[in-house]
Amino acid sequence: MTSRIGILMFDEMEELDAVGPWEVLGYWTKYFPEDGYEIMNFSRDGGEVTCAKGLRIATQHSYTTVPDLDVIIYPGGFGTRGHLKDHTQLEWLRTQRSRVRVVASVCTGSLVLAAAGLLTNRRATTHWASIELLAELDPTIDVRPDDRYVDEGDVVTSAGVSAGIDMALHLVRRFTNDERARQVRRGIQYDPQPPV
Amino acid sequence: MTSRIGILMFDEMEELDAVGPWEVLGYWTKYFPEDGYEIMNFSRDGGEVTCAKGLRIATQHSYTTVPDLDVIIYPGGFGTRGHLKDHTQLEWLRTQRSRVRVVASVCTGSLVLAAAGLLTNRRATTHWASIELLAELDPTIDVRPDDRYVDEGDVVTSAGVSAGIDMALHLVRRFTNDERARQVRRGIQYDPQPPV
Repeated sequence: MTSRIGILMFDEMEELDAVGPWEVLGYWTKYFPEDGYEIMNFSRDGGEVTCAKGLRIATQHSYTTVPDLDVIIYPGGFGTRGHLKDHTQLEWLRTQRSRVRVVASVCTGSLVLAAAGLLTNRRATTHWASIELLAELDPTIDVRPDDRYVDEGDVVTSAGVSAGIDMALHLVRRFTNDERARQVRRGIQYDPQPPV
Repeated sequence: MTSRIGILMFDEMEELDAVGPWEVLGYWTKYFPEDGYEIMNFSRDGGEVTCAKGLRIATQHSYTTVPDLDVIIYPGGFGTRGHLKDHTQLEWLRTQRSRVRVVASVCTGSLVLAAAGLLTNRRATTHWASIELLAELDPTIDVRPDDRYVDEGDVVTSAGVSAGIDMALHLVRRFTNDERARQVRRGIQYDPQPPV
């Protein structure tokens, strides 16, 4: 049976938060279907979202049409700010949490996880500029400002924006093995050399 | 006067090839408008494109409605294969080349640049799996398989997929200075730590 990974999308989501993991997981699921995973994206209403830097991305499913998921990726971006006080969104996330195997956030997506109570007494991280807010949202969180990502089993959080690429490679490794993750890394030629 | 950076999009384009630079350049232009640059995306007909891993992205302009550009980013992906023998596309690219300051490719985007004759007697790179094809398309190219990106002034090429992030940071540095590029790097928390 195929396991499904759903990448949540919403307005003012940070582009790379979502598309970094999409690329890693999309490469993996396309070239290694024998591993039994597939990816899809979805949004609350199933429509197009307008991201934080203006990119408009279509989604395949809404909250009601998306099939049962095994893994949810929750990106960050300014769009998460509204989610923090959106009781319908937080309740949806808590319900999903009880159904899926892993909820994994990128960047400030972890703020929403914290607001929904998913990080109580857990280690977690977020974008460096939101470290204090994460601690304020739930003082029981063991905040890890220096970690690229934190795997707590059923909940995984990562640092800002580009950290979602590293976290997604970690998930590939966790769901399969080191060799597969290296194949994906090689496929997207992820040998980063920041010029500054 | 504002300088315009246009990211070309097309069907079967590799998602991260385009969205990596979009994130870097989008962060820069949004938070530092005083530098005088803006970004936009465009496609041949101005419609939605379906990327190599299935993501559907809307575009803001078509070839006829896009305003005069200073910089064009040409992503890679399987969609470039059709471009190699598409004389309308190659002629469009040659015309653009004569008008813009910089044409910068990501991944197999450089194959199209080669097919259009833009890399004759130049140093260039591409995705590792297409290094031989790049040399075949134009034997005068000084192919650089080990370079993350190659800046030849009016033409810049980069290695596969994720290399577009490094190349885009290089462009920010080139168009401004080291400090600005570091600010953008910090903003997207680009301190990569590949887990495998």
